[in-house]
Amino acid sequence: MTLRLGVIGTGAIGQEHIRRCSKVLQGAKVVAVSDINIDGAKGIVSRLGLEAEVYANGHDVIASSDVDALIVTSWDPTHEEFTLAAVAAGKPVFCEKPLALSAEGCRRIVDAEIAHGKRLVQVGFMRPYDAGYRALKQVITNGDIGEPLMLHCAHRNPAVPESYTTDMAITSTLIHELDVLRWLTEDDYKSVQVVFPRSTKNSHAKLRDPQIVLFETQKGTRIDVEIFVNCAYGYDIQCEVVGETGIARLPEPAAVQMRKEAKLSTTILTDWKDRFIDAYDIELQAFINDATAGKLQGPSAWDGYAASVAADACLRAQESGVIEAVELPPRPAFYNK
Amino acid sequence: MTLRLGVIGTGAIGQEHIRRCSKVLQGAKVVAVSDINIDGAKGIVSRLGLEAEVYANGHDVIASSDVDALIVTSWDPTHEEFTLAAVAAGKPVFCEKPLALSAEGCRRIVDAEIAHGKRLVQVGFMRPYDAGYRALKQVITNGDIGEPLMLHCAHRNPAVPESYTTDMAITSTLIHELDVLRWLTEDDYKSVQVVFPRSTKNSHAKLRDPQIVLFETQKGTRIDVEIFVNCAYGYDIQCEVVGETGIARLPEPAAVQMRKEAKLSTTILTDWKDRFIDAYDIELQAFINDATAGKLQGPSAWDGYAASVAADACLRAQESGVIEAVELPPRPAFYNK
Amino acid sequence: MTLRLGVIGTGAIGQEHIRRCSKVLQGAKVVAVSDINIDGAKGIVSRLGLEAEVYANGHDVIASSDVDALIVTSWDPTHEEFTLAAVAAGKPVFCEKPLALSAEGCRRIVDAEIAHGKRLVQVGFMRPYDAGYRALKQVITNGDIGEPLMLHCAHRNPAVPESYTTDMAITSTLIHELDVLRWLTEDDYKSVQVVFPRSTKNSHAKLRDPQIVLFETQKGTRIDVEIFVNCAYGYDIQCEVVGETGIARLPEPAAVQMRKEAKLSTTILTDWKDRFIDAYDIELQAFINDATAGKLQGPSAWDGYAASVAADACLRAQESGVIEAVELPPRPAFYNK
Amino acid sequence: MTLRLGVIGTGAIGQEHIRRCSKVLQGAKVVAVSDINIDGAKGIVSRLGLEAEVYANGHDVIASSDVDALIVTSWDPTHEEFTLAAVAAGKPVFCEKPLALSAEGCRRIVDAEIAHGKRLVQVGFMRPYDAGYRALKQVITNGDIGEPLMLHCAHRNPAVPESYTTDMAITSTLIHELDVLRWLTEDDYKSVQVVFPRSTKNSHAKLRDPQIVLFETQKGTRIDVEIFVNCAYGYDIQCEVVGETGIARLPEPAAVQMRKEAKLSTTILTDWKDRFIDAYDIELQAFINDATAGKLQGPSAWDGYAASVAADACLRAQESGVIEAVELPPRPAFYNK
Repeated sequence: MTLRLGVIGTGAIGQEHIRRCSKVLQGAKVVAVSDINIDGAKGIVSRLGLEAEVYANGHDVIASSDVDALIVTSWDPTHEEFTLAAVAAGKPVFCEKPLALSAEGCRRIVDAEIAHGKRLVQVGFMRPYDAGYRALKQVITNGDIGEPLMLHCAHRNPAVPESYTTDMAITSTLIHELDVLRWLTEDDYKSVQVVFPRSTKNSHAKLRDPQIVLFETQKGTRIDVEIFVNCAYGYDIQCEVVGETGIARLPEPAAVQMRKEAKLSTTILTDWKDRFIDAYDIELQAFINDATAGKLQGPSAWDGYAASVAADACLRAQESGVIEAVELPPRPAFYNK
Repeated sequence: MTLRLGVIGTGAIGQEHIRRCSKVLQGAKVVAVSDINIDGAKGIVSRLGLEAEVYANGHDVIASSDVDALIVTSWDPTHEEFTLAAVAAGKPVFCEKPLALSAEGCRRIVDAEIAHGKRLVQVGFMRPYDAGYRALKQVITNGDIGEPLMLHCAHRNPAVPESYTTDMAITSTLIHELDVLRWLTEDDYKSVQVVFPRSTKNSHAKLRDPQIVLFETQKGTRIDVEIFVNCAYGYDIQCEVVGETGIARLPEPAAVQMRKEAKLSTTILTDWKDRFIDAYDIELQAFINDATAGKLQGPSAWDGYAASVAADACLRAQESGVIEAVELPPRPAFYNK
Repeated sequence: MTLRLGVIGTGAIGQEHIRRCSKVLQGAKVVAVSDINIDGAKGIVSRLGLEAEVYANGHDVIASSDVDALIVTSWDPTHEEFTLAAVAAGKPVFCEKPLALSAEGCRRIVDAEIAHGKRLVQVGFMRPYDAGYRALKQVITNGDIGEPLMLHCAHRNPAVPESYTTDMAITSTLIHELDVLRWLTEDDYKSVQVVFPRSTKNSHAKLRDPQIVLFETQKGTRIDVEIFVNCAYGYDIQCEVVGETGIARLPEPAAVQMRKEAKLSTTILTDWKDRFIDAYDIELQAFINDATAGKLQGPSAWDGYAASVAADACLRAQESGVIEAVELPPRPAFYNK
Repeated sequence: MTLRLGVIGTGAIGQEHIRRCSKVLQGAKVVAVSDINIDGAKGIVSRLGLEAEVYANGHDVIASSDVDALIVTSWDPTHEEFTLAAVAAGKPVFCEKPLALSAEGCRRIVDAEIAHGKRLVQVGFMRPYDAGYRALKQVITNGDIGEPLMLHCAHRNPAVPESYTTDMAITSTLIHELDVLRWLTEDDYKSVQVVFPRSTKNSHAKLRDPQIVLFETQKGTRIDVEIFVNCAYGYDIQCEVVGETGIARLPEPAAVQMRKEAKLSTTILTDWKDRFIDAYDIELQAFINDATAGKLQGPSAWDGYAASVAADACLRAQESGVIEAVELPPRPAFYNK
């Protein structure tokens, strides 16, 4: 059986997902697309040689009887609207992050999904599908290092454009850690503090870079995340979990080991797209498989909401300089595994 | 367009390839299968829910007008016959190694393919599709280490059964290095010598283990390959290329780094199936894409023949204890890239 | 010329230093010793076959005309008194940490030394003599990573006894980082905060373990130090300096690389004495050489005072849970290099 | 007690040893020196401020009643003569490699020493004193990897001058492996073969570089040593011991780990003097201690002879291209430990 997909939004990431679902993954085909720029939508359909209807409006994609499930990759401010519409239509929807522009928006989706009575939403957090994070979680779950007590993490980009501002370190960058660390530790944030080291001279006036975000979790685990988006040397994601009996560290990407010019070295990636490229495939294949089976299991609307609530607290902590509470309500039983 | 595949032989590896082509890869479907055990063939079709015809005889699969291309995963002694039949039928064929039981058999396939006038055969050597070997080759091709002068390689298995004998170190194990090292260095073997260290006590009467195989290539590069199939500690494939200006080494598989019990460690794989699992997918996807495009580019019948000629020289060297020539005729222009 | 040493205090570390100065290092001999347990002092002189006078009182050692320089390894509460007496006598003195029991005590030594007009005091901080830290500092000084922005450090012991309490994480353990990080960054602490992750179950009622100490320096560098003294797995000192253009990390101790039992591993030390064993030799040889040359250059009384002031702020931060200022007066010109 | 040393030969290495024995090590002083260039000898005595007699002739140093033990660092062709004279005088002698210019010369020293009835000679092989090799040997001795079956070794220099010829790869370079691998494996060579890969273009007309030397030992262990003295990238000594249950590898020198310019790297040494600098100190301290105690334990005249016999076989194998026997007589009981 083939899952018939409608894709709303054919910008860069939308095109990537269309290509994936059409040319790489199994069990799905793209039968409908829409974009505010309808010529762009037509172009991608034509270039990939798809047999897909092109609509001017995402709601028509959702409504189409040919469409079994949705992928929402439109302009961020429209994510909530289209996701709610998909839920209302009772169709599974994969929505790229952010699920909504605010925690309240995410909450509306949560409430709609609960009211509908069945999980229909997967948020586009791909790191839980990364083989490295999965191996790291396995180590923790196996009890190989005892209970986690501390996590030392870093998210480093070689450089960002002038348009990237201090708050985006939370909303565009840390947002991935906010999700994956909850998943990794099966824990929730209790409070957060942000401290600012002196900035690198490679930053600009509207960006304090680097930043360090310090969390306490409900279980009392302490997490520090260094965000350094003009680190110059590479795209580098680090995660070290210090447990009661040992320490486990996210794998470095496999690389040729070189002996050359008085250095023993391996290459560090510089393009973020190379780092989690396999995870995007696995993430979407999981959505296709789970949607086909009628039982979504990936990052949920609740996970999107929880990340959004945490991000809001981080933004407050950036401003206040003090410890801010992360006020996440209890998880509804609906989302228990 | 979907490539319609016929699979001859539904043993373990045949089943794996059927699953891959049906459930993982893009652009193909399995429409016909056969096996000497026809009930086994029916069983796999049924378990995977395929719409595929089951034939008693592989030649009927080849002859079927529904079949565009063949996968030969039957009993080794039948590989040559079915591959020749596919060539005669003008259909692309992916034949698992060994292409034939002898170098002469491989040569007959080469001759048939040349007579046919177009490449139709891909041999099942998957290592050139491994991301690590590809990265290593890129380093060489880039000139990052200058001209290769020496290769130090190792092929280690944790243990082998009693049925594994001294000659199988060449025909079952080294055969992968025989192919991938030609591909990596774009060079051919000139001579070979085999030396036997004292055997591990974990071996048995009919297996001298470890062995070291020493090659000189046409360009004068020296290659040593340690084959150690009862190494106890893991499945470990090593390849280090010493060039004029530097050394490049095959990546270690990515793994969680642990600090535990006074050790800083990463896990070494123990099951060979985990080591090249991605390469099998990429290899078959390449066959599907290239067969569909009408232009095979993977390991050719000539490559299968060259590996077989080298293996024969290795077997002679095991017996003689002296340096044996590898007598490979010049490569026919037909196989130039 | 041979520097004639008097050693005050012949407990464990005193005996080690006597052995060092007598059997390992060049240019010195131990000519006088004292200890509150005079039989212990006599025993060590006899066991090592030294020609050394044994005194009942440390002040007699200082006063002895045979003694050129002092090593103070007595009971901690007497360090200040003996060091002040050595300064008063105009003799160079190597005083094991702590220089005094309080910052005020350290300050009295600083004031006495300034009044004397010449550097006479070296404090027993050995890490600046460790080859690894020296290599790390060289990288920074060379400008290889640009200006340091953040330091991520860890100080881990496998286990501590029941007598080790929460405050000792600062006064016995962190004290080494307090000194070496000032030396490494050529910077001073501005403020400090201590956070407590949930404790490991391997700790006990009077010890919160682990702890994280967060510093801001005068230059705005942020330093986090994890102190985890029941980490179970080994004695492990980590220091990572994140600079504007790259990251440098303290070398792991050299170790045999093993492939065994499905692990690729190196050994982690478990005994702290093995970690800096060479640094102790180098530290004391430097004292001998510098005292002989009449110009001390190692960790100064001011460095001892600065570490003590920082430690006091850390202790306040442990209690208060908030950010505490580190109130170090300006460095007297006397101590400029 | 202080060992009074006479040093014969005050060239570069002689000066280094005089400095060591005078300024770094314990328990010895240099009381007499000689050199064919007597002004050079006087100069070093004066520069180091030694109270040492300067002789025109090494034999006068040996004869001097002030001298307890000798260090022979004179011109290679005189090593045998001075060492024999020291043995005749019944004085312990540390002789830099080579012990003699030929295996026969070494044998004469062995015979003289046996005739004397007590070990008096230590050869200047320093690698058995290197902490890395000692750790590696400990792993083997502990049985951590079972019986050694194969050793894969490399000796790489960044570059050599035009005066370095093919045979010197054996006599100047491999000579260190010839000694240390015997010590490491407690085994002797049975046969040797040399193969020549195509030469690097960084070599010159009189030097075939690299070379690979292949040994079989008496126990049946196979050893391959790559000698590559124009490897361009660094001074790099590798030794990997493959045992029945695991593999142990010589430690890489400790180094700062860097993340910079898209590389995760550590520095490789380029100057051979930095690689074993500590081993020279330990080697000579052991000679001083053992000579003082009247019982030499370091590399013996027999070890010097055995290395020389093996080197001769290697030179024959370079010429013949075939496997050459290493004809070492049985070890005299005199040299059993």
